[in-house]
This record gives sequence, C-alpha cells and structure tokens, in this order.
Amino acid sequence: MTNSTSKGTNFDIWLDSYASRAHSLSVSEVRALFAVVSRPEVVSLAGGMPYVHALPKELITEAFEKSMSTRGDLAIQYSGGQGDLKLRDQVRELMALEGIKSSVEDIVMTTGSQHGLELISGLFLDKDDVVLAEGPSYVGAIGIFRHYEAHIEHVETDHDGLQPEALKEAITRLKAQGRKIKFLYLVPNFANPSGVTLAAKRRAKILDLCRKNGILVLEDNPYGLLYFDKKVPDALRSMDDNVIYLGSFSKILAPGFRVGYVLAPPAIREKLVLAQESAILCPSMFSQSMISEYLDSADWQGQIDTFRGVYRERKDAALEAMAEYLPKLSTTHPDGGFYLWITLPEGIDSKAMLPLAVKELVAYTPGTAFYGDGTGQDKLRICYSFPTPENIKVGIKRLANVINLQTELLDTFAKGGKK
Amino acid sequence: MTNSTSKGTNFDIWLDSYASRAHSLSVSEVRALFAVVSRPEVVSLAGGMPYVHALPKELITEAFEKSMSTRGDLAIQYSGGQGDLKLRDQVRELMALEGIKSSVEDIVMTTGSQHGLELISGLFLDKDDVVLAEGPSYVGAIGIFRHYEAHIEHVETDHDGLQPEALKEAITRLKAQGRKIKFLYLVPNFANPSGVTLAAKRRAKILDLCRKNGILVLEDNPYGLLYFDKKVPDALRSMDDNVIYLGSFSKILAPGFRVGYVLAPPAIREKLVLAQESAILCPSMFSQSMISEYLDSADWQGQIDTFRGVYRERKDAALEAMAEYLPKLSTTHPDGGFYLWITLPEGIDSKAMLPLAVKELVAYTPGTAFYGDGTGQDKLRICYSFPTPENIKVGIKRLANVINLQTELLDTFAKGGKK
Repeated sequence: MTNSTSKGTNFDIWLDSYASRAHSLSVSEVRALFAVVSRPEVVSLAGGMPYVHALPKELITEAFEKSMSTRGDLAIQYSGGQGDLKLRDQVRELMALEGIKSSVEDIVMTTGSQHGLELISGLFLDKDDVVLAEGPSYVGAIGIFRHYEAHIEHVETDHDGLQPEALKEAITRLKAQGRKIKFLYLVPNFANPSGVTLAAKRRAKILDLCRKNGILVLEDNPYGLLYFDKKVPDALRSMDDNVIYLGSFSKILAPGFRVGYVLAPPAIREKLVLAQESAILCPSMFSQSMISEYLDSADWQGQIDTFRGVYRERKDAALEAMAEYLPKLSTTHPDGGFYLWITLPEGIDSKAMLPLAVKELVAYTPGTAFYGDGTGQDKLRICYSFPTPENIKVGIKRLANVINLQTELLDTFAKGGKK
Repeated sequence: MTNSTSKGTNFDIWLDSYASRAHSLSVSEVRALFAVVSRPEVVSLAGGMPYVHALPKELITEAFEKSMSTRGDLAIQYSGGQGDLKLRDQVRELMALEGIKSSVEDIVMTTGSQHGLELISGLFLDKDDVVLAEGPSYVGAIGIFRHYEAHIEHVETDHDGLQPEALKEAITRLKAQGRKIKFLYLVPNFANPSGVTLAAKRRAKILDLCRKNGILVLEDNPYGLLYFDKKVPDALRSMDDNVIYLGSFSKILAPGFRVGYVLAPPAIREKLVLAQESAILCPSMFSQSMISEYLDSADWQGQIDTFRGVYRERKDAALEAMAEYLPKLSTTHPDGGFYLWITLPEGIDSKAMLPLAVKELVAYTPGTAFYGDGTGQDKLRICYSFPTPENIKVGIKRLANVINLQTELLDTFAKGGKK
C-alpha cells in the first residue's frame, strides 16, 4: 500500500498515458528521510547538506550588492544558454586548482551539477545502454540513469577507489555480451557515499582502459577542494581532454543558488548547450551573477579553508565516536568530504533497521540507496557535514545501541538455532 | 557546412555514442539571432525579452534583504523537491486571479515554466507519440517535444485561437491512424507567437473534446496577467481539474530568477516531483525565497500594471507603424502580451529574407520557427516588448523597406514571366 501512490492508483486516470521512462520513478530512500530530518529531536546523519552556517552572510550581501550595481538589469534578464562568460572564466581558474587546463568556450554553467549530469545522460543514454559506476555510487546519479532506462553496472571499489582490474573484467564481460557501454561515471574524490579517493596511480590506468574501449568518462567532483590535509591527485580531466568534468558551487559555497558547471569536449559541449536551452532556456543569471561577484570580491579560498576545518572536526568526531561506541565495525576513513561508509555485522539489514534507529532518534542512509541492483543491505552511510560534533557523537551512540541490540538478537537466534 | 558542428563532425569521436534523442537537437532560428541582437545598431524585434528596466531595482534589494533576514541560512540551503511551501501558497493566490482554485499540495515550483514543460513532457512522451499544438506554437515547446522524439500535429488557429472543429478533425484522423495522442499543448492568452487569445466560448468545447478522447491538456500561461485593457477569460484549469497548468514569474517579475510553477492533478504531481528531484534535486531556494519576499512586501499588482502600460504603449507603436509603413499586410491585434504575427505577401519567404533585414539593421523571427513541420515561410513574428516605441517604429520602417523591395522584385519577375 505504501508504494501505491508513487506507481499510480485507481484514481490516476492518466495511468495508461505515461511514457515508459516514467515507470522508473520511485521515492528514493534518501527522500523518504527528509520528513525525519526536520524533527529537532532526531540526530540526522542522513542527508548530505553542507554546513552553510559557516558562511558569513555578509559575503552574500556584498555579492548581491555588487551584482546589482555592476550588472543591473542584466542580472535579472534571460542570458545565454551556455552561461555567463565572466563566471565561466572564473570557473576555468577554479578548475586549474586541480590541474585542469580549459577554455571558457568549453565550459557550460548548469542548474547544479545534478542538471549537468542529467543533460549529459540525456545526450548519451538510450534504453538498455550500460553505465559503469562505482559500487557504491551516488544515489542521485543512479536515479538519472534509471530515468533513462539504462543498465547500471557497478564496479568494485576499495579504499583506493575503483579497481582497474574489476573495471577491465566488467568491460570484457559486457562487451562479450554485446552490450553498449556508454560511459563510466565516477566521483574520484571523497566519493559519495564511500568517502574514498581514487589513488593517483589508478587514474591513468582507468583512463587508458576507457580510451581503448571507446568509453566516455564522466568525472563528478563536488568535494575535491574539501580535503582535510593533503590535496587530492590531479583531476582525471587534467590527463585526458575527452573526460567530461562536472563541478559544483553547492559544497564550496552554497547549494541554494543551484549553480554547477560542465567541462566537455567541444562536440559534446555544443550538444549540451542545445539540450540545456531546450530544457530550461538558460541557467539563472541572478545566481550566476551573485557567484561571479562573490568569487571576485570575497576571500573564497579562505572560506573553503573554513569549511575544511568544520568538516575535518566533524569527521574526527564521527571516527572517534565510531571507535568508542562501535569499535568492531569497519568504516572508511575519508581524507575529505562529507561521508563515512560503514559495514554492518553479518545478518543485519540497514534498511530494515532504519525504523528502529529513527525510534532511537538517529537517522542514516541505508546502503541499498547507493546501488542500482538491490545490493548494499549490510552497508550504511553516515553524513557528518551538518550536525555539530556533539550531536554526531550522540547520534553514533544511539546508532550503536540499535546495532548492538540487533547483534544480540541475531546471536540469540543463532544460538537458539544450534540447539 | 554551417550545420556540420551541431550534427557532429569528423572530430567528434563520440559520434556513434549519442542517444537517439540527441540527433533531434539543432540550432534554433531564435538562438541564431542572439548574436545579432547584441549589436546596438540593429533594432531587434526578434527575442522575447521582458522589459525588466521597468522594474525598480530597490524592490529587488528589499526582497533580498527580507529574504536574508527572514530565512537566513535556509535561503541558501537545499530545499524540498516540490519547492518552498510559502511561495506555493502565494502562487495559489496568484492563480486565483484567473479563476483557479488549487491546493498548495498540487503546486510544484520549477526552474522557469520551461523546465516544468520539459519534466511533464518527459513523464508522458514516448517516441512517435503525438502532441497536439496550436499552429503556430511556442518555439521552446516545439524543441522539447522534438527532444522526446514526439510527432507535433499543429491544429489551425484563427483570431479566436485554436479552432475546436480543427481539433476534432485532427483527433478523429489521428485516432483512425492508430496514433497515440498524449496531450494538447496550448498558450491560451496572447499566444507566442500569434498574440491571439482563445475565446471564452471555445474553452469549454476544447476541454470537452479532450476529456472525451482521454487527451491531457497542458495550459501554458506566462502572459495572462499582461492584458492591456480587459481581463482574459478564466483559465482552462478553472473549468477542469485535470488540466496541467504552467505559470511563470519571468514576465510578471523577471526571468533571471528562473522561477515558474506547475499545477497538476495529484497523481501526475507526485511523479513530477520525483522527476524534478532526479533532474535537479530541488529548485533554487535562493530565487524562490527572493520572489516570496517580493510578493509579500512589494506592490506586485501595481508593478504588473506598470508592465501592462509599457507593453500597451509598445503594441500601439508597433500597430501604428504597421498601419503607416506596411498597410497592406495582415497582422494580429493582440489584447496583451509581447507579439504581432504578420503574414507576408505571397511568394516572400521570411527566413530567406532575414539576412536582408539584418543588413537593413532590423531583426525578427521567421515563421518557420513556430512550426514543427517546416511550414510558416510566409509568416514572421515581431516582438515589441523590449525596444522603445521609437525604435519599434524605426525597426518596422526598415522592415517595410525590405519587404517592399522584395515585393517589387517579385512583381518584376511576375511581369517578366507574363511577357
């Protein structure tokens, strides 16, 4: 019954009219948690919200004032479909921090990097095409690939990110099956949800494999500048001009502007601009102009340092709490970003456990959200970016209570079973 | 050669990788004109830009200040996929001005109404499905329907808008051919490009026809509040809860915010929210919050009156110039909105004439842009919303020179032929 409305009920007189792709839509596990997050007594380790409170609001006000005085009426008018030229030039400099050489001509501003990924997917994915993705992979990307009725093939990842050997095996197997592999999608730095970073030595290998097999690489990098101590390896895009690179201001500034960007090879970029014009006419000039002025006048690199400090402290709090309350559980140890990826004791299903956790006033995201194939039951994602360090500890202590109770129950049943 | 880049060149190594839908993308006739518009010596009667200069910028500043003081960090954070609840409630009141009764539950905020139309089209259109649309119809809608590889069937319109008899004929004919008609898309008030308004007495007939044939109605109404003297008839949505209604702040406030909205029946609305979350996660909270505060504190109805006055004056200037310089040409006489739709003397092709017009320093949009089937060669659209009344007259005078020269040439050839 709970799913009936999302699939259409007897009351939906248009049930026979929907397109084939509409049937892939379902309420995501992350979305269902939004209602929970809003209850103040619950410590939410679920949603991936940046801590925008650490951004001084006067920086926003200054950017607004400069935007209105410099751009005036142009800041509230339609703009070109590719996005603001000045902001694209600033994005070029931003990407240079991760080793990328680019031209403003090849940059397209988008409504968050999510829409960049959506538009690129629309350009490439026919029904039943294959997308290769990390296992686990970003839930929002999985949703888009499903929307285009693609098959998502997860490639095994470890603490150094995607495994080149596993990628090679997957490509060989799928090609032998006659499947069309359109692209490899990956979040190389502090991945969502795993928190791991693709090792430098693996990057060239992966690019080489994809190049040889005619597979486009989509590099999604919203977290790269949010390292804790050591800079991330240079972007894949810096080593191969055929990589499509997706960037975002959501994590290094604020997500409410919905501004991201795509760097793409010229032929693809041309189609991307046309697809964008078809979908939304143009990205918001008001938001773009604000961000351009922010980059012009604020100490935005200092602000990123501030964010880094905030997230490092919270990551430390999360790992300390894990060591104290759940010492036997395996977790990733991220060098940046927002997430811990935790493996539960055998036999515990993170999705089934969630209601019990919410009863104990803590929320997380079940591992199954990050796989297109129903696996991930024994995993869960903790997002430490938004709650205070104190609340992170309280949350993980509550989570430990739930997990320990589940473990005891399982042990009791197991012993009972042996009698 | 001119089209080679948009279709992929020898240099596009991904040419074989694109999805089927990507091949429908082409540079629109409107887009190609953007470069022309920016030259100051050209009077552009082409693009459909609102005259945002008539909006006092202090209203924007006040809205920004209130947004930051009231919403604070929430104004720059991710928000729900359906859009801001307070703004949706204000949209409910706005729609009531055109007779629509609605619930905030059924309103979805979008990235301009363009994205609302894109998302709805994605929910309903499979390849080769039929969309019924006015002939002529909005160029941006045609682009979306093409993107989804739908067949666009134009239904004849006259000075009272879409003809119910022609609609009936088209439905009967297409059904007999076994075609799947998914929806009727129409702009009932001051349509783009024709400028005509669907007569009140036709509205019930059209709704009745669509209801009987299981055809969804998409009512796109960005201009309805921009009437010159007399209010438009009540919205089609006010007569039938199954109509999907698309609204926008682009013309009654400013397009740079990219904020529109969709009112949809509950089952469709649920899918729409999911599709939106998949495509962009959430609409911009920053833009939504600004507009909400603007509606709260500014005299927005007075501002719409100001816009009405501006556009009425420009429409008058355009019609006066038409009467003076091109008295023999047939033009529509809009009661609101941005556009005149002009029929050229027999034998003149508006697309072929455009380079000559640009040479004479005037630009317009050729009629073919507004048909999915290549017709409209003898039509052109004049947009009077952006240039001053003086420039409109200069532009139409220049246009008359070009048309008269073309007519003379044709007459000479015709006489030559008769010898």
